[in-house]
Amino acid sequence: MLYLIGLGLGDAADITVKGLQAVKSCSRVYLEAYTSILTVGKEALEEFYGKDLILADRDLVEQGADEILKDADVTDVAFLVVGDPFGATTHSDLVLRAVHAGIPYRVIHNASIMNAVGCCGLQLYNFGETVSLVFWTDTWRPESFYDKICKNRTAGLHTLCLLDIKVKEQSVENMMRGKKIFEPPRFMTVSQAADQLIQIIQRRREEEQGAELGVTEDTVCVGVARLGADDQKICTAMLRQLVSCDLGGPLHSLLVTGRLHPLEVDMLRVSAEPNALQHLHMIDSSTYCS
Amino acid sequence: MLYLIGLGLGDAADITVKGLQAVKSCSRVYLEAYTSILTVGKEALEEFYGKDLILADRDLVEQGADEILKDADVTDVAFLVVGDPFGATTHSDLVLRAVHAGIPYRVIHNASIMNAVGCCGLQLYNFGETVSLVFWTDTWRPESFYDKICKNRTAGLHTLCLLDIKVKEQSVENMMRGKKIFEPPRFMTVSQAADQLIQIIQRRREEEQGAELGVTEDTVCVGVARLGADDQKICTAMLRQLVSCDLGGPLHSLLVTGRLHPLEVDMLRVSAEPNALQHLHMIDSSTYCS
Repeated sequence: MLYLIGLGLGDAADITVKGLQAVKSCSRVYLEAYTSILTVGKEALEEFYGKDLILADRDLVEQGADEILKDADVTDVAFLVVGDPFGATTHSDLVLRAVHAGIPYRVIHNASIMNAVGCCGLQLYNFGETVSLVFWTDTWRPESFYDKICKNRTAGLHTLCLLDIKVKEQSVENMMRGKKIFEPPRFMTVSQAADQLIQIIQRRREEEQGAELGVTEDTVCVGVARLGADDQKICTAMLRQLVSCDLGGPLHSLLVTGRLHPLEVDMLRVSAEPNALQHLHMIDSSTYCS
Repeated sequence: MLYLIGLGLGDAADITVKGLQAVKSCSRVYLEAYTSILTVGKEALEEFYGKDLILADRDLVEQGADEILKDADVTDVAFLVVGDPFGATTHSDLVLRAVHAGIPYRVIHNASIMNAVGCCGLQLYNFGETVSLVFWTDTWRPESFYDKICKNRTAGLHTLCLLDIKVKEQSVENMMRGKKIFEPPRFMTVSQAADQLIQIIQRRREEEQGAELGVTEDTVCVGVARLGADDQKICTAMLRQLVSCDLGGPLHSLLVTGRLHPLEVDMLRVSAEPNALQHLHMIDSSTYCS
């Protein structure tokens, strides 16, 4: 049996009782270690589970799936994923390989950033399409996510922005030289994401002179960090204010609000920056949509 | 401290280790029992936790919140919610009451139907707005969810349809007479939801002669039942086929596909009805959108 087990979002104790039982019963346990992270590392998990873990980087999952699935028809193998196995990142490819090899599989679900963001007060059924923000390079500065956010917002819907994670990345130089030397991990912060969005807004404003933009520096946004962990941070503010906020260590996500229900506004107030409260009040007392 | 604890979607063992520790430490534990259900009842949970539970129906949560929050500033109180506390149903109102009473609160997340549906193979970031289908009455047959599904689909996005749950409902007669006699619980099935959608499609087709409908009897849909439980069922088929499918006991949800990625098609094949496979093949070999 192949078990795909969600670890949730905080630390070792966020695994479900069912998931923990499965981990303990497996002969090999892989930890997917390139699309998300917990607030604790491999060693803390090993101690909690009483099991050795095998780190599964992108290479192993994408090119070494046979190794992961080896003998899984006669023994139990676990594949651990931060969040939910079908959350922000799907592991469909591994599941399909198991199915085609005649290996039964079972999913043990857990919280994902895709549903846990509800705790900031924005209602999940009012979210539109989720977008991803990637680190820009000198030559690659994609903007298509901005149009998706605007489209959601025009339809009155909120947007969850997943922020880039770079783990075990090689520099172009090292890649060209075939050197397996990796850069330190990088995690996009809410501040960096807000800055990127504002650069797009400024460019669009120049380009489309006079046109009204769907998302501006004044749009009410929510920055979240380490959601589900003991030291999680939620900060509701204007996009322009978020550029200078420091929410601490990874992982961060950014929410862009759409039309706000009064109950959503009341919940946002709980996490609002003092100087953002007046903006929220403006929303509250007018049309519930900034 | 007020703990809002998600129970996940299957049985007692789907609570997280952190959630279980919190439950055991609380002096009062409420079980929210009107917006969703597990595959096991109150007694099974009590045995698993080693704690007595207090059932919290809609009346208690909406009108008796003071009772739930009583002394929560000096003792620990748990409020258990099937799925995630901020998933398909939000308990913002209870949180806001706690905040205003100066009672600290903590959320322990878990899987929700809002993210667990990813296991059928449809990618969560390709979902649009979530809709709810309610049981129609003789005089109330809302159709607005159909337009939202069509809007999502036109944008290439999938739709999660949450299906109605009626727990502790009074008949109009008993309500008028003030009799606290409750009807047996009712849960909308995938079959009933598909039938309701097809009635709308037929009516629209007559009304808007010649107009192309966004969702038809041939649209590829996914029926899911008891997601996360040992006996979960996932059935991919044309909407017309789902009318006659029997996925067993509650809870059910319906997914309406939008534009399909080849990897999504491959995953849907795993759960496709034999006679639906040819339709999926058609999708696969043409534009990935039925």
